[in-house]
Amino acid sequence: MRLKFIWPGKTRSPEIRGLQDFYAARIGALASLEIVETREGRGMDEAQAGRIKELEARGLEKHLEGVYIICLLDEGKTMTSREFSSFLRDRSGSAGKPLAFVVGGFLGLAERIVERADLRLSLSRMTFSHELSRVILLEQVYRALTIIRGQHYAK
Amino acid sequence: MRLKFIWPGKTRSPEIRGLQDFYAARIGALASLEIVETREGRGMDEAQAGRIKELEARGLEKHLEGVYIICLLDEGKTMTSREFSSFLRDRSGSAGKPLAFVVGGFLGLAERIVERADLRLSLSRMTFSHELSRVILLEQVYRALTIIRGQHYAK
Repeated sequence: MRLKFIWPGKTRSPEIRGLQDFYAARIGALASLEIVETREGRGMDEAQAGRIKELEARGLEKHLEGVYIICLLDEGKTMTSREFSSFLRDRSGSAGKPLAFVVGGFLGLAERIVERADLRLSLSRMTFSHELSRVILLEQVYRALTIIRGQHYAK
Repeated sequence: MRLKFIWPGKTRSPEIRGLQDFYAARIGALASLEIVETREGRGMDEAQAGRIKELEARGLEKHLEGVYIICLLDEGKTMTSREFSSFLRDRSGSAGKPLAFVVGGFLGLAERIVERADLRLSLSRMTFSHELSRVILLEQVYRALTIIRGQHYAK
């Protein structure tokens, strides 16, 4: 299984960065994993949300050719962890494209990125901070891989 | 607003512990906050799940008198962050009981604790690790408080 995680900017919180590395290492032991941190629009005036998202979209879309695009959105499709593991298993046949998870920055994703999504996935109806979303996504992917392998991974 | 967070055992992951402290400090600036880490059944044989949950239930229930009990469960009620903030605002009138969020340990909550819940709340249809759930809950409560106050808190 080939998995890409794409988001604008490095994870700033040292604790969240630590958890990101923790889950990435575990995923990396079970699948091919790549994390791509693209150019971010931070520091620009937030009133210019459209320009920030456009700038970030240009960084993200360099990595969206030939992959199955999964955009994370609050209003996307919700799944249980078991449904998510079945989805990953079904999508990752030998002929399958790599799966690319795209997580927006602090202002979210530009509409033209969302329009390219093969799947709009929601981790929750609740809105999580964009950095925390990265860790929650990685934890769910790790959990899904352990479910696929029939391994035990406690609550 | 008086908020209690009750769960068995100290948070072990240093990163998750750090995030827990981070959000607790922010919540504490906006509301009365107490985190209670009760006796946990860790180290006991997982095959004895019933005994572990019973032991943890005895620790948890010492803190459930005179409070409005919110148990976190995957299959509980899901809400958006905005709905959750409205719920907190509506429950926290001056005459209201303190709100007590109860998060299960690595095996979940004993049924008799769940039966006492005034609300069964789900952070997501997905199952998160019990330590990560603590941080996600705290982040949502902090987000809800900023929504109630009309403060800006970015994605």
